[in-house]
This record gives sequence, C-alpha cells and structure tokens, in this order.
Amino acid sequence: MIADPKLLGIDLGGTTTKFAIMRPQGEIQQRWSIQTDVLNDGNNIIPNIIDSINHHLQLYQMSAKQFQGIGIGTPGSVDYQTGMVDSAFNLNWDRPMALKEQIELHTNIPVQVENDANVAALGERWLGAGKNADNVAFVTLGTGVGGGIIINGQIVHGQGGSAGEIGHMTINPQGYRCTCGKRGCLETVASATGIVHVARDYAQEYAGDSELKASLDNGDDLTAKDVFDLAKQNDPLALKVTHVVCDQLGLALSIVAVTINPQYIIIGGGVSNAGDFLLQRVRESYNRYVFSSVKKTTTLTLATLGNEAGVIGAASLILNK
Amino acid sequence: MIADPKLLGIDLGGTTTKFAIMRPQGEIQQRWSIQTDVLNDGNNIIPNIIDSINHHLQLYQMSAKQFQGIGIGTPGSVDYQTGMVDSAFNLNWDRPMALKEQIELHTNIPVQVENDANVAALGERWLGAGKNADNVAFVTLGTGVGGGIIINGQIVHGQGGSAGEIGHMTINPQGYRCTCGKRGCLETVASATGIVHVARDYAQEYAGDSELKASLDNGDDLTAKDVFDLAKQNDPLALKVTHVVCDQLGLALSIVAVTINPQYIIIGGGVSNAGDFLLQRVRESYNRYVFSSVKKTTTLTLATLGNEAGVIGAASLILNK
Repeated sequence: MIADPKLLGIDLGGTTTKFAIMRPQGEIQQRWSIQTDVLNDGNNIIPNIIDSINHHLQLYQMSAKQFQGIGIGTPGSVDYQTGMVDSAFNLNWDRPMALKEQIELHTNIPVQVENDANVAALGERWLGAGKNADNVAFVTLGTGVGGGIIINGQIVHGQGGSAGEIGHMTINPQGYRCTCGKRGCLETVASATGIVHVARDYAQEYAGDSELKASLDNGDDLTAKDVFDLAKQNDPLALKVTHVVCDQLGLALSIVAVTINPQYIIIGGGVSNAGDFLLQRVRESYNRYVFSSVKKTTTLTLATLGNEAGVIGAASLILNK
Repeated sequence: MIADPKLLGIDLGGTTTKFAIMRPQGEIQQRWSIQTDVLNDGNNIIPNIIDSINHHLQLYQMSAKQFQGIGIGTPGSVDYQTGMVDSAFNLNWDRPMALKEQIELHTNIPVQVENDANVAALGERWLGAGKNADNVAFVTLGTGVGGGIIINGQIVHGQGGSAGEIGHMTINPQGYRCTCGKRGCLETVASATGIVHVARDYAQEYAGDSELKASLDNGDDLTAKDVFDLAKQNDPLALKVTHVVCDQLGLALSIVAVTINPQYIIIGGGVSNAGDFLLQRVRESYNRYVFSSVKKTTTLTLATLGNEAGVIGAASLILNK
C-alpha cells in the first residue's frame, strides 16, 4: 500500500498539454500546462512531457513510487492496450508513436493511454455531470462532434476502436456532405462548423429582417457562438437555425438512448457553452423522438467540467484499469 | 465440482414453452416443449413449468444437483436481478409474477430470468452467427422489432432495462404512427406488420403492373413473406417496398454500429427468413450510411439458430452470471 497515493492525468492537445496531480478520491492537488510543440514532426512532444513530469515531481518533492499511474488522453487513433498512437494529425504524428512505452521508461510510472473524447467522457462521468453513474454517453460538440460510451463503468471501445463515433452517425441521408466522405453525418449540422454551415444555407432562402442574415451577407467571419447569441436575442433566422441544429441533435441522442439506455447523456464541447438555451431545445426534440420508457430513465444534461474533463478523465484511467 | 454439469434453458412463449438440457460446452442433450396455458390469468404457467422440469429430470434419471442453473427467457418487463416478471400480456400476466423464486423453490436449482429478445441475442452470440464474439448487437424482425446488445460478453440492460429497444428508434420523424405513440419508429417499417403497411402505402400510388398491387387491391391477407417472395420474382412494386424496408433497416443498423461498433450485428426473427435477398439489400444501404472505420470492423449477418436461439440463450444465462 502506498501512503497518500496519487494519479497523474495528462490531456495532450494540439496547442496545450495539461497536467493534473490528483488523489484517487477526486481532489486535484496540483495542475500545470505546457505548450505542445508540434514542430520537428511532433518529435519533441513526448520528451517535453517526460521533462515536465520529472521537473514537477522534483518541484513538489514527490517520488514516482507515490503514483498509481499516469493516464493520458490524446487525439489520433489509439491502441489502448499497447499505448501506441497513430494518425494524430494535429500533433503532426502520422506514424505510430510509443507514447506509453516512452513515458513509462523515463518516469518509472505505469501509463494508460486513451482517445481524448473517451477521456473527456470518463472525466464528466467521474466528477462532472455523470455523477459516477455506471452507464453514461458523452457527446462533445466542438470543431467536430465526438463521443464516448461508458457501460458498467468502462469505456466501450468496440471491435475497431470506433464505438462512440456519434458525430458520424447518418442523421439525414439527404444532408450535407461530411469530411468523412458520407452525407448527413450529425457532425455536419451539430459541430461548430456545421452550425455555421446550416446558418449560411438557411440564410440563402431567408428574406426577412435578421442581423444574422445581414452579417452573413456582409461576409463576416461568423462562429457558432454568434449564431446562438443572436438566437438568444430572438433573431428570427438564428432561431430557425438553432431549431434545426437542436432538433437533429435531439433526434441523434434519442437513438443513442434507445440503443444503450444510459443514465445520463452529457453534452459537452465548446458549442455546449450555449447552455440552457441549447439544452432546453435539444430536450424538447429528444422528448418527442425517444421511446417513452427510455425518456423516464435517460436524462440529457450539460457537461460541467469544461476544459478540466480531459485531465480528470485521464487520471481516472488509472482507477478504471 | 459437479461431474458432467448441465444447464437447463427455457424459452417461455405465448403459445409454446421450450426446454433444452445442455452441457456448458454448448451441446444440446435433451429437448422438449409444452403448450403454454395462458388461461386462468396465466396462473398455470409456472406450476406447469415446474411439473415439466421435475418430470423430465426423473425421466432422464438426472438430479437437481447436476444442474448449474436454469435460465429462462420470457416476454414482458423483467427485473433480471429479482427474477420478477410484469406486463407479459401474451402470458396474461398483468401483475408481478415470481418466476425465479417459484421455480427455485420447487426444483432446488438456481434460476436466472431475462427478457426474451436479450436471451435470443445471447443464444445467437454463443452458438449462432455471433461466433462467441465479445460485442454483438442482435435485431429481431417479427410482429414487432426487438433487440439485444451484448458488450464484453454481457447483456446491456441500461438504466431502465430498455437498452436494445432498437425497434423504437425514430428512423423517420415524418414516418408512420407507431403503437408506442411515437412516429417513425423502425418497427413501423421493418417489422412483419410494418412491411405490409409500407406495401399498402406504396400500392396506393402505384400505377404499373404488379401482382402485389393486384393482390392488395383484391383485399388478400398479405404477409411480409408474400412481399419478399414477390420481390424475389421481380414484382416491381414488391421490389420498391423491399428497397424502402431494407434501406431504413440499413440506416438504423449503421447508427447502432457507430454507437457501439460491435463485431457482428445479427438480423433474426421471422422476416430474416427472406435470407440473402434481405441481407444483401440491407448491407448495401448499411455500407452507404456507415462510418468507414466502422464498416471495416462491424459485420452484418443473418441469425443461424432460428427458433432454438431462445433455449440456447436462456441456458447461457447461467454461463454469463
């Protein structure tokens, strides 16, 4: 038994790498971050992480032996058993990188590696909106739409590691073309870029007064946040756009709900900052589309941890081993 | 250790109750069935099952001690922990029935009870098309559409026991009204009754030559099997109807696939007797709608056990404890 054991959670992102030292009870004791150096084909990333860990352990007068493990959330295609990462293009990793092996070798602490959307799901499940429930689905609405499915407290990886790819469910076979090559993926309407796409599309046929329409016609560089902000001010076109977005999202989540009937479906990512305005509209559609016995037991809710879901979920990988 | 241990699987249906004595390796040693007596508010069902078990154990000169357990698949709402069954209307059980407790008491063998669609899923997973894979989704196309989800070798029940209710996913928000009160459930187009509904609907606007059209206009009592049989004979309306049905089913299964990425999605139930004609058309739509990395790893396939999936899956409940 280690006295006062610790977990180290690492959220490896394209611009920043975040670190948190946690206790297994869920308390964050230390946190710091470094810039992610993607130059030199991303070859500096792993050495920089190792240096930063060892530096901070010294700084805090902690030893490797105190740590039950290091959990890392990373973009790209992850082999969660070997801890190899491939195709993490925003890290400039286009070849397999031995993330687990290298960090274990140079820190003497066991490492678990997991996909970043799955790690955020674990974080929200543990200390966020998931209230430590056994069965949780998480959807993150950012530049794209990602997801993570937790059943019996464990991430569902699926046969090819593609479980939880909620962003690429075909929600409208006649919908927009997706970057993945298909048509009508949820991501094409419910991601930040998708929402702007819907706005541009509906603006073309919109004839009434609308600040959103004027802004788009003016060539302004609009964001999903702008669309939701205008909708909150009752801009009629923005209301129409957010209605379409929330309706498709409610439909998609109703299907996730009848498939696995989790206790919570948690909506996170930058778009979820639209808050209750978003949640209420998604819920309205969800309630219309979902099977009645599922409606009673699967609750839609907003993520609560924000950017910290990543480090917290990463640390929890050690608990979930 | 029991020498030569046995499992007893029971498939409790509205007309017949099937029994199978199996070895844990998967071999069926004895099988028999009795009529399900739903008279007297279904109060005879449990005593009849008990009598039949005890009678056959005597007949085969087996003792209760040889049995690792009895697994039962039943319609209705099942509390799989207590083994209570409620709302099994085709058994005339409109109040909670102590299926597990009663049978344990009078046979001295431990009992596990599970929903019939989940049990069929377990059966196909164990000895059928699932090839004992860890992650399997099963959809049964019968009078209604049911389903079962197996992850890490375990049935997913979900928060309210409604996981796998694939028949009630909203696949077309503008679709037909469902018995559940919603609109556009998969069941409204992909069940045996749904397929006939689609046929009647498309026949109304069909002007060309078609035996299916003539038969419907004639007021014949058509079945889903008739529709598929006519499609196989290139009846143009029947081809159109089966195209719509298979397309919606392919879309629904593509969504199940991106959510949990199982190794197999198995299509069973009476409608699946349409065989490769059905499978090829569902696959074609599935391949169009599913995310590419999922397409490589989740395989659509037909159930292979037919009516035996129930008793086999029921027996496997004892292995899956």
